[in-house]
Amino acid sequence: MDSWVDGQPADVLSLKDRGLAYGDGLFETIAVRAGVPVLLERHLQRLEQGCQRLALHVDWVALSAELDAYAQGLWQGVLKLIVTRGDGLRGYAAVPSAPARRILQGSPPVAYPAAHAEQGISFFPCATRLSEQPLLAGLKHLNRLEQVLARAEWGGAEHAEGLMRDTSGRVIEGVFSNLFLVCNGVLMTPDLSRCGVAGVMRAELLFQAESQGIVTQIADIGLEQLHLADEVFVCNSVYGVWPVRACGSARWSAGPLTRKLQTLARALLDV
Amino acid sequence: MDSWVDGQPADVLSLKDRGLAYGDGLFETIAVRAGVPVLLERHLQRLEQGCQRLALHVDWVALSAELDAYAQGLWQGVLKLIVTRGDGLRGYAAVPSAPARRILQGSPPVAYPAAHAEQGISFFPCATRLSEQPLLAGLKHLNRLEQVLARAEWGGAEHAEGLMRDTSGRVIEGVFSNLFLVCNGVLMTPDLSRCGVAGVMRAELLFQAESQGIVTQIADIGLEQLHLADEVFVCNSVYGVWPVRACGSARWSAGPLTRKLQTLARALLDV
Repeated sequence: MDSWVDGQPADVLSLKDRGLAYGDGLFETIAVRAGVPVLLERHLQRLEQGCQRLALHVDWVALSAELDAYAQGLWQGVLKLIVTRGDGLRGYAAVPSAPARRILQGSPPVAYPAAHAEQGISFFPCATRLSEQPLLAGLKHLNRLEQVLARAEWGGAEHAEGLMRDTSGRVIEGVFSNLFLVCNGVLMTPDLSRCGVAGVMRAELLFQAESQGIVTQIADIGLEQLHLADEVFVCNSVYGVWPVRACGSARWSAGPLTRKLQTLARALLDV
Repeated sequence: MDSWVDGQPADVLSLKDRGLAYGDGLFETIAVRAGVPVLLERHLQRLEQGCQRLALHVDWVALSAELDAYAQGLWQGVLKLIVTRGDGLRGYAAVPSAPARRILQGSPPVAYPAAHAEQGISFFPCATRLSEQPLLAGLKHLNRLEQVLARAEWGGAEHAEGLMRDTSGRVIEGVFSNLFLVCNGVLMTPDLSRCGVAGVMRAELLFQAESQGIVTQIADIGLEQLHLADEVFVCNSVYGVWPVRACGSARWSAGPLTRKLQTLARALLDV
């Protein structure tokens, strides 16, 4: 499906766009099932938080209509939404009231191997660390060189994801996933107030778990605690939940809480 | 002057460019005088270091020819060169051997107030801190949200630049400048191995100072040391050298070493 820029079909962008010049923008990767964007409210909520933090002015009425129409046309697949500060002059200073540019891109459903969800995946232990920047932490912004460097650390099919730690050594997330641990029945996920992307599926799983009376905890997590966890899994908005079975010398089995939350994610993502 | 993409006039870019998606690229801002790119060797040297760090594959022969021809056409002004990893598939993984995309943009000379160079400028003390990421430190990469946030902290004409510190509190640089101090006759500039952009004018001034027997030092510098400095100035490839006369309650006078290096920069940038 053709991409859209501000509601119009387009496959190119102005060279003056500040998304290119500075990564001055945000994005969302949204699963689309039967013409409907999955977890749309949560995606828009995170985008709105990002827009507040970056002082980006989005026409929410236009965006909402475009997302609905685009998803209807795409029907099944992945909708990537990019919001940038639009064209810039020379230099970092922006026009304070400039309307944000809305870019929609569609792609077919991603065909991950079924074994990722069934038997679980192996983490590549990335050497690239996440720097700590509370002003940008949690946002899905366009400054993603750390993920590019981390993803370039491994090739081949042995590792489906990479484990990223912050510069202080805390365990934070996968390169394109959030991370969960189960420790003595408690569902834990790393605190993302210094770095990391606060994923929409992460928020949904925390909400669903709490609704079912499962104790959840957002905390700083070290490598030792990860190794001692009873269950480990990753999640994102596109593939749902994958158990993690290995990282370096550590081994885990896909446990009951992982399977329960995987089923919940499947209910959202399978048609 | 029209922009060029891979040597061809263009004002738009593919929406699939990884420069937009992830800030996956580098840039250089080069002064052009009488059709010649100023300090071109240093710009290309830094770009090459960045390309090695990010594993970007630039056609250096084509780039070099394009820079010469573009500068000849622009004659006077600022040439912005952006190098990106080109179009991407879905996800962070890149095609390892993909050729980098070369984007050239020209703009007329920047008309800064003469008082900036003569009387000196006032620093706005930015609250936005630079995060510490040794893998990207020194590079002029496209992930520049910290600079966008910092530049948005002040408006009006009172402050021409903003002082940025790292998350540990060290003094690092301006938002679009490098920083120098003179302390007891020693020319000092912050170490940029954790964050910051290793500017081309900074490198040139360090080289010129050393050639003239001035003692130089690259070091970690705290706010107290900045306040106690005898002279403070900022520099970049476009405006040369500006004395810094104030930051918060601190005051400095434009001293002899600042004026000496300013004259050297002027010799490069004035025609």
